[in-house]
Amino acid sequence: MNQIKMHAIGIIHSPYNEKNDIPIQGRFKDDVEAWAELKVKYVKGLKDLDKFSHAILLYYLHKSDKENIKGKPFLEDVEHGIFAIRSPHRPNHIGLSVVKIKRIQENKLYFTAVDMINGTPLLDIKPYVKYFDSRDDIVSGWLDKHFKNGKIPDKTIIRRF
Amino acid sequence: MNQIKMHAIGIIHSPYNEKNDIPIQGRFKDDVEAWAELKVKYVKGLKDLDKFSHAILLYYLHKSDKENIKGKPFLEDVEHGIFAIRSPHRPNHIGLSVVKIKRIQENKLYFTAVDMINGTPLLDIKPYVKYFDSRDDIVSGWLDKHFKNGKIPDKTIIRRF
Repeated sequence: MNQIKMHAIGIIHSPYNEKNDIPIQGRFKDDVEAWAELKVKYVKGLKDLDKFSHAILLYYLHKSDKENIKGKPFLEDVEHGIFAIRSPHRPNHIGLSVVKIKRIQENKLYFTAVDMINGTPLLDIKPYVKYFDSRDDIVSGWLDKHFKNGKIPDKTIIRRF
Repeated sequence: MNQIKMHAIGIIHSPYNEKNDIPIQGRFKDDVEAWAELKVKYVKGLKDLDKFSHAILLYYLHKSDKENIKGKPFLEDVEHGIFAIRSPHRPNHIGLSVVKIKRIQENKLYFTAVDMINGTPLLDIKPYVKYFDSRDDIVSGWLDKHFKNGKIPDKTIIRRF
């Protein structure tokens, strides 16, 4: 299987119109709301998602036009492998964010914890299931030193691309 | 943008050769090990991933040949929208698992918490970052009643397709 074909199931409408506006991780900027607008044929797929507090959005990082095998992350000047950072310049350009569900109206899912640029093509929505997706025994590599003692580094709200 | 083209960055080698063998969520069967074998050109992308305890694997659910808009999940006989369940029969067929990293050797990432079938095409590896991906204020919709008081339902180890 050499080529895998995908398609947008909808579009993410975000207040971030410029790459430089986007927070690195939307979790740290919870006052900003966005919505995913699904193609009408997928509306029934949202049934019962409103009973979940969070969802995992998978989307296409369409503004990246390159694929790097290593990169320097936002928080430091040290190079790590692309699979040890969350850079958009990665093979297949799939973005992943855990977002907080605010409400669902027809084909629109409104959410906070936004870190996508306006117009981002949506690939999938999965319910966030604490029994599968949350862990309490996590070591987060090079990131742990930046988040010591529950501190959120200033640099989590800076440009992403 | 109507069509998005992706490709496998590697293959997942799993002891599960038949669809019916696969646990619903590998987290509840931690004695089984698998490995992701990356194409050689991506080896450098693994640098420093071994300092993380967990990774998020995104993969192509290549054994599913259908796309349902609703479905009955493994734990109950009630229909939910496809975006409120983790069924493989979803638009774009992207699978997501949080796995526990055991070791990395050259182009091979060994892990536990396995719930993929042998030969699954790998699309991406992301480091699991507790500050981004873990939450402590989760409501998990229709699933919560099945996991009351920390109980793991027997049915989490059953066939997936």
